[in-house]
Amino acid sequence: MRPQIVLFGDSITEQSFMSGGWGAALVDSYTRKADVVVRGYSGYNTRWALFLLNHIFPRVDVITPVAVTVFFGANDAVLLGRTSEKQHVPIEEYKENLGKIVHHLKECSKTLSIILITPPPIDESGRQEYARLSYGDNAAELPERTNEMAGIYAEACCGVAKDLGVLSVDLWSKMQETEGWQKKFLSDGLHLTPEGNAVVHCEVVRVLNDAGLCAPEMPYDFPHHSVIDPEKPHEAFQLRSS
Amino acid sequence: MRPQIVLFGDSITEQSFMSGGWGAALVDSYTRKADVVVRGYSGYNTRWALFLLNHIFPRVDVITPVAVTVFFGANDAVLLGRTSEKQHVPIEEYKENLGKIVHHLKECSKTLSIILITPPPIDESGRQEYARLSYGDNAAELPERTNEMAGIYAEACCGVAKDLGVLSVDLWSKMQETEGWQKKFLSDGLHLTPEGNAVVHCEVVRVLNDAGLCAPEMPYDFPHHSVIDPEKPHEAFQLRSS
Repeated sequence: MRPQIVLFGDSITEQSFMSGGWGAALVDSYTRKADVVVRGYSGYNTRWALFLLNHIFPRVDVITPVAVTVFFGANDAVLLGRTSEKQHVPIEEYKENLGKIVHHLKECSKTLSIILITPPPIDESGRQEYARLSYGDNAAELPERTNEMAGIYAEACCGVAKDLGVLSVDLWSKMQETEGWQKKFLSDGLHLTPEGNAVVHCEVVRVLNDAGLCAPEMPYDFPHHSVIDPEKPHEAFQLRSS
Repeated sequence: MRPQIVLFGDSITEQSFMSGGWGAALVDSYTRKADVVVRGYSGYNTRWALFLLNHIFPRVDVITPVAVTVFFGANDAVLLGRTSEKQHVPIEEYKENLGKIVHHLKECSKTLSIILITPPPIDESGRQEYARLSYGDNAAELPERTNEMAGIYAEACCGVAKDLGVLSVDLWSKMQETEGWQKKFLSDGLHLTPEGNAVVHCEVVRVLNDAGLCAPEMPYDFPHHSVIDPEKPHEAFQLRSS
């Protein structure tokens, strides 16, 4: 009945319903107008995401979403030779995988809005602090992610979006426009603070608006209570989405 | 693929994805295990909710939820002769309407867990403050809701749940166990603060656990990243919900 917006991604998507999260804020922005479905998989890179495509987005489904955010790259961009290297995906394969995801989604629906979101910037000192808090003296000397490498993946992500004619949010660049982004937007050098979540929410809403999914202009699924006549409530419900 | 939990109710359900909201917290509690679908309709009472039943819960549907929270009564309990009286539903009809909702849901599925949630307590001075802030000198002298009346509806709600053999959360009583509940749990004498939302979240999770929907014991929809062998990722996905 309601159009569906699917959030497909890694931990930054999975955690988007924690307090102050961008996924929850999106539900609130589209209240009674669209459903937001979260499909976030902590730790996943684009290589592993491919295994989920046919299950999450079957080519023939009863409900095809109107928009999908594809938010991977933070794990693909993990450096080889550091902790977490098992999550690394080479840049060329990352681009290919994003392309496969976009092609699959396009096969599901020609009218679907696809939004590629780049990985956020990395606060390397924040990652090191987190590692020391988590592993103490066993923490690795060097962070497993660098901001430079995240930037390379972010640029590649935007390039794929441009080449394939889909929408994108360059989160890596956007966040770095704000002074003190390292601690303001990132809680552990990678994951988002409530302020960081607000940036993602704001950017996703902006792009959804551009795609014609502007919540204030979308109809309610059922009448607003103010238009229900208490003596003749059935009349409002005959109209349905007034 | 994932079991579905539907939140059906009035504004306290509709607003449950605002920052600190109980709906969003429920999504987070059941992350990668169950989908939480919000069907909250601000201002609605049980009389108007009946018009939605066949649409939101068609008797024959591709997906039948495993649990539904039914959270009405705050508007039914509005006093006659005060502002908002158009939302009032007499207590006997409120009980009948709740019964109709429960019967309808039981027809959808025999295994569905139905959870009736009572209206929260009312902080009458909070309601008056809110009215003065909203309407200034035009604010009514007397609040449109009283805690005593909310209590009568809450008791009726628990009675219906008991009579029909479904689950319930007596939010009206639960919240009043805490000293200072008026300002601690209610932002405007009726709607919830983040602390109030936490009480609802906690109570709903407790009842869902009792109903066998205990998140820690439920399977992930797809493998946790730690069990994926980077050399042979397909193996983890052959198992699916490991």
